[in-house]
Amino acid sequence: MKKNLKKEIEGIAKMALAASRLLANLTSDAKNAVLKDMAAALLSNKQDILKANRKDISSSRSKGKAFIDRLTLDEARIRQMAGALLDVTRLKDPVGELMRGWNTDSGLRIQKVRSPIGVIAIIYESRPNVTADCVGLCLKSGNSVILRGGSESLNSNLAIYNALNSAIQKHGLPCGSISLIKTPDRKAVDILLKLNNYIDVVIPRGGEELIKKVVSSSRIPVIKHYKGICHVYVDAWADLNMAEKICFNAKVQRPGVCNAMESMLVHRDVAIRFLPGMLKKFKEAGVQIRGCAFTRKIAKWVQRATEKDYRTEYLDLILSVKVVEDLDEAIAHINNYGSHHSDSIVTDDYDEALKFLRQVDSACVYLNASTRFTDGNQFGMGAEIGISTDKLHARGPMALEELTTYKYMVFGSGQVRQ
Amino acid sequence: MKKNLKKEIEGIAKMALAASRLLANLTSDAKNAVLKDMAAALLSNKQDILKANRKDISSSRSKGKAFIDRLTLDEARIRQMAGALLDVTRLKDPVGELMRGWNTDSGLRIQKVRSPIGVIAIIYESRPNVTADCVGLCLKSGNSVILRGGSESLNSNLAIYNALNSAIQKHGLPCGSISLIKTPDRKAVDILLKLNNYIDVVIPRGGEELIKKVVSSSRIPVIKHYKGICHVYVDAWADLNMAEKICFNAKVQRPGVCNAMESMLVHRDVAIRFLPGMLKKFKEAGVQIRGCAFTRKIAKWVQRATEKDYRTEYLDLILSVKVVEDLDEAIAHINNYGSHHSDSIVTDDYDEALKFLRQVDSACVYLNASTRFTDGNQFGMGAEIGISTDKLHARGPMALEELTTYKYMVFGSGQVRQ
Repeated sequence: MKKNLKKEIEGIAKMALAASRLLANLTSDAKNAVLKDMAAALLSNKQDILKANRKDISSSRSKGKAFIDRLTLDEARIRQMAGALLDVTRLKDPVGELMRGWNTDSGLRIQKVRSPIGVIAIIYESRPNVTADCVGLCLKSGNSVILRGGSESLNSNLAIYNALNSAIQKHGLPCGSISLIKTPDRKAVDILLKLNNYIDVVIPRGGEELIKKVVSSSRIPVIKHYKGICHVYVDAWADLNMAEKICFNAKVQRPGVCNAMESMLVHRDVAIRFLPGMLKKFKEAGVQIRGCAFTRKIAKWVQRATEKDYRTEYLDLILSVKVVEDLDEAIAHINNYGSHHSDSIVTDDYDEALKFLRQVDSACVYLNASTRFTDGNQFGMGAEIGISTDKLHARGPMALEELTTYKYMVFGSGQVRQ
Repeated sequence: MKKNLKKEIEGIAKMALAASRLLANLTSDAKNAVLKDMAAALLSNKQDILKANRKDISSSRSKGKAFIDRLTLDEARIRQMAGALLDVTRLKDPVGELMRGWNTDSGLRIQKVRSPIGVIAIIYESRPNVTADCVGLCLKSGNSVILRGGSESLNSNLAIYNALNSAIQKHGLPCGSISLIKTPDRKAVDILLKLNNYIDVVIPRGGEELIKKVVSSSRIPVIKHYKGICHVYVDAWADLNMAEKICFNAKVQRPGVCNAMESMLVHRDVAIRFLPGMLKKFKEAGVQIRGCAFTRKIAKWVQRATEKDYRTEYLDLILSVKVVEDLDEAIAHINNYGSHHSDSIVTDDYDEALKFLRQVDSACVYLNASTRFTDGNQFGMGAEIGISTDKLHARGPMALEELTTYKYMVFGSGQVRQ
């Protein structure tokens, strides 16, 4: 049984590798035509998808409301999925871009050309829309993709996959172009993660648990972010009205996402002017505050923040607050306690700002803006397959370009090495 | 004992992380001044270095001649090391480069800025010059570096390190800027490779064994190349004089390196015209040939190539030869048997050439040139820390730029997310 599973998963990976060689050389027009047909297929198979989704929902009744919400599809969500595929057709094809070209002393012409990575595996949790989103981005960037969704959304994923795959078949593309691992057996993931001879990169999308599991058992390179512990630092030279708006937005506008603020740092020179009003505003919005001793002197109702609080991604209406001596303490705190995701300084002092932007070791560093902008769409990348807090290959929002590598094409006229 | 070792290695890694924050913000002038003093220190400590090297050599008498050759330093090699450091001062500093900048609809100014990776660990074998080369490149790219050389060259490495570190101290840079792991205990490497909280990337430099060991036990991302099984494919439309020169150069000029040709593919339409003269030339140069049935019909003295031959990196005057039906077979053979390092086509047909360059899935693909050009210096990068056959982060020759990542600096004027 396990041996058969290994053979099955290996078979999928081999087919994906073979398909990737062909996908790498499709024209943009050819890829866009498939994407358009995929969008159409989602709409025309709407009823099947919704029916499959109802099946998933009815087997997941015991899970919480948030879980069911992530799992549930309706007509609007299917239209969104189709729309996202059409959006991808309008994005610039990264493949074949001449990144740099130069001539060498030996008379060679070297061209650094953007190319697809090859085979991408995506391991995700309960949101079925990830199925269509990832297929769209991987196809447009010329990669084949192997999908492994959560077992609770298997029927929905399968229905979506079948619709998308009908477009692959219609255009005569190899059947390994997009694959979905259908067995609910959890061992399938362990097997998949060992296939570094066929798969080039794994992108886990989901909670910290999932990501840790993937990282610890993968022999394939992983692009990931564990969590977003984002800070806003209100400097001594901040415009305090602006600071209040930015901090409120970063915490309250959508607290459940990775680019929301989890920790607010305030320079001691402005703490007494800034904190009373700010904390009151947070209180009115239902934000629970956990503060340092200084903060608690200003607002008696504030809970005491522990060391652990400063390392916690609440993903909720909870905020840790700390008053710091100076910019250096703020930078050191962020580098030590943060998750290298997104951090902002509010200040009118350009020197202080630049020091912060340079020395804070995070994927995205902001001056006078909310951390909530760390997002492929907000950055103008058009789509997003995740946000990386790694430093190798991709950092920050990842879109089409981050799904590519490059190769050197070297044009000679008989050159040999002396 | 083991606990102490763990503490010691962790201490080194923590200091390297702290130092990296400062190195990331040094000016190019400051870094170049240190590099110049490092070069001077190598020369002024020449006697100490040579003395230490003699100690290493005398303990390694039992090893082979090639080993001793790699290990041995003399005045000329020390001058070369110093010269390489001076060369690095003349390379463009990659840190701070504005890779791309744009404005978003929300009025944010986004700048993608090249930044150091942070802490780089280099694990290498018996060549002591690697110590100075890696320190130069890591320092110029604003990274701190942790070095772990082979135990046989420990005294040499230590003497070189001490000279380099005197320049670090003279300029008041943090002592974690460059570190050398001094204990001969092999457990030190295992400990080091688990410190993914402090170290950003590991670059192993050495034989396949070393690299495999690092990959299998590292929790830190690794940039590597296992081996170079490089091909030259002589197409039906090749200029056969040119093909002969290129193939001869790729095999014979320096057979012991990763970009030398290990396997030659020949289109059947030109095999009878091309192979007799080519094989004779190889024979005269002492190259042992292992060929397919077709090849052996042309030259009876040729040994039969096994399946394993086509997967072997000889690093020696041995060559596998195969006659193929067409371009497609050549491409499929290279993608299947090769190591995705460097492969060349010799042809006058531009369509065939482009198909080869696009579909061969290797870091460097050549038209009408020897594979021997895959090298940071030959590419005009000025220096090289290795050649990657990975696809993530860096592919092909790696120099200063490949030792950097990027961050997004986002300049706002109070923007909040709607």
